[in-house]
Amino acid sequence: MSTTQTNKIETIKATATKINEVDFDNLSFGAVFTDHLLECDFINGEWQQPVIKPYAPLLLDPSAKVFHYGQAIFEGMKAYKDTNNDIWLFRPDENYKRFNSSAVRMAMPEVPEFVFIEGLKQLLKLDEAWVKNGNESTMYIRPFMIATGAGVVANPSEDYKFMILLSPAKAYYSGEVKVLIAEHFSRAANGGIGAAKAAGNYAGQFYPTSLANKEGFQQVIWTDDATHTKLEEAGTMNVFFRINDTLLTAPVSERILDGITRKSLIDMAEKEGINVEVRPVLVSELVEASQKGTLKEIFGAGTAAVVNPIAGYSYKEVYYELPKIENSFASLLKDKLTSLQNKLTEDTFGWTVKV
Amino acid sequence: MSTTQTNKIETIKATATKINEVDFDNLSFGAVFTDHLLECDFINGEWQQPVIKPYAPLLLDPSAKVFHYGQAIFEGMKAYKDTNNDIWLFRPDENYKRFNSSAVRMAMPEVPEFVFIEGLKQLLKLDEAWVKNGNESTMYIRPFMIATGAGVVANPSEDYKFMILLSPAKAYYSGEVKVLIAEHFSRAANGGIGAAKAAGNYAGQFYPTSLANKEGFQQVIWTDDATHTKLEEAGTMNVFFRINDTLLTAPVSERILDGITRKSLIDMAEKEGINVEVRPVLVSELVEASQKGTLKEIFGAGTAAVVNPIAGYSYKEVYYELPKIENSFASLLKDKLTSLQNKLTEDTFGWTVKV
Repeated sequence: MSTTQTNKIETIKATATKINEVDFDNLSFGAVFTDHLLECDFINGEWQQPVIKPYAPLLLDPSAKVFHYGQAIFEGMKAYKDTNNDIWLFRPDENYKRFNSSAVRMAMPEVPEFVFIEGLKQLLKLDEAWVKNGNESTMYIRPFMIATGAGVVANPSEDYKFMILLSPAKAYYSGEVKVLIAEHFSRAANGGIGAAKAAGNYAGQFYPTSLANKEGFQQVIWTDDATHTKLEEAGTMNVFFRINDTLLTAPVSERILDGITRKSLIDMAEKEGINVEVRPVLVSELVEASQKGTLKEIFGAGTAAVVNPIAGYSYKEVYYELPKIENSFASLLKDKLTSLQNKLTEDTFGWTVKV
Repeated sequence: MSTTQTNKIETIKATATKINEVDFDNLSFGAVFTDHLLECDFINGEWQQPVIKPYAPLLLDPSAKVFHYGQAIFEGMKAYKDTNNDIWLFRPDENYKRFNSSAVRMAMPEVPEFVFIEGLKQLLKLDEAWVKNGNESTMYIRPFMIATGAGVVANPSEDYKFMILLSPAKAYYSGEVKVLIAEHFSRAANGGIGAAKAAGNYAGQFYPTSLANKEGFQQVIWTDDATHTKLEEAGTMNVFFRINDTLLTAPVSERILDGITRKSLIDMAEKEGINVEVRPVLVSELVEASQKGTLKEIFGAGTAAVVNPIAGYSYKEVYYELPKIENSFASLLKDKLTSLQNKLTEDTFGWTVKV
């Protein structure tokens, strides 16, 4: 791969800022974007010069492969501003590695590290006024890549576009989350693309989730598609279960995303002396623990939500409410992780990276 | 649903035609498009006025949901010109029904019949010079719908765009096709979106297919993801097997597309007195039939390829070559179907619809 075009980032500044139109106290997740974005095209087998430029619509051929064959991947990341107004990223190397793993699985080109990491840092520096202080304010970062090549023959595109968007954010989920355990619908196949952050994995969840919504559940806990006996993911998050004082979560697999929040929480929980078991978790043991009163907590884990406590779950038409508890692992781990991310406590793990 | 905006199609004609630049004898599949396309937007819960207009690029927000969450579906259809220069569609009602089934599964709005069917007919009439006579020439039709709503929150879009593109075509596959039977990778999950013509189902196949290509196989025969023992689809086609004089194909399911060519071939084969069994077909019975010499043919069936004979298959590192036979079912059924589609023989099934 030639690096001649990709070792320098061109910057075209917006002539005006939209920042004064934004109500930072009332942000709807993922709806507002900063003044600039990063764009880098892959053409004729080569990554071209990355460009930071004003946020603007894209012009694409109606036969572009992203529209017809779903070659599209993304990452979710966040940036945080500390009390010295320094901006920090959380484990960006992990997002970069996963992005390129997704690219390989979707027959797309791997993005150079300079374009992804250095491009993101320069973009954040340019739009730094949009990154706000405080534990509840973050900058949500959306790197993504789409197939731009024209033509409706079903094979991989020759051309691609990599972009990074920045969206100032508050907390992702609010209020009590009740979940439905999937008995019929599934998120991913064995030997499929469930471990990739591929666009196509998400649209398939919308209809089953909308059915759950109609029954009063905000999310679905996905089970393995072959037997529907193993608990795998919750909505677009990884999922943890606390039975007595043991924290359980499924191992990553071809069906389960290798979540960066997930693995960070496992490390943090172990450091706190919590017993963590990474192993297949059965629906039956969840129900049994509920009946015995040993099921203490369920929570989702992901970049957008960080930690999202679940109030109860339904399985085979029976609703199991979770107890209100003190010393919740979800609260403890969320506090520890967001404090570390926001540089309010020392980062003994070495996960934070200064922009 | 209001029909006030959708019961009339506006037409904006191109100022010039590109038709003289096209070499109709050397068409690469899906690469050339006619002068016009049909576009109809879904905004604020309503389908807007459909418009036939010059083929041109689309302008979309970089946060449009199609790029991030893969809400995108399509159909594949063909139009044929007979010796009287009348244009015919093949079972367009089936494509329309399937398109809206895909829409429901992907949490997208159903497209009104007038927009899909009447819109297609008017588009074909306007670009009729692009539809050529002859058994080897067809007009490939690509209706599709994408989520155009902006915002990177993972929920269904509020806005959509439906379009129809026309691409003059020759045969889709050429030469001998050798296939690899999937032992690890999969196309679809139980309870997933495999029965929908969703964009995300296709990109997931590109990487496993590229690995097969490197070993000298043009396509993959997909097996069920749970056990990899049942034969399901071939590449982007349904698949038929002939053991002795019985034609076998898998039943449609949540994992298998309800192919219109597939069901037409079943009806045609039965009319020809061929014994057809629609039932799960095991990899083991295929290998056993090869070993006994009773496996006569394998062929794919789809709109693009119509019928695509397979020369041989590989399973667990062993290559099984298919015999060269006379009185091939693939040839017989392809001839019968393409003759009917091209109005060279009487359509006793009532499948052809005049534009």
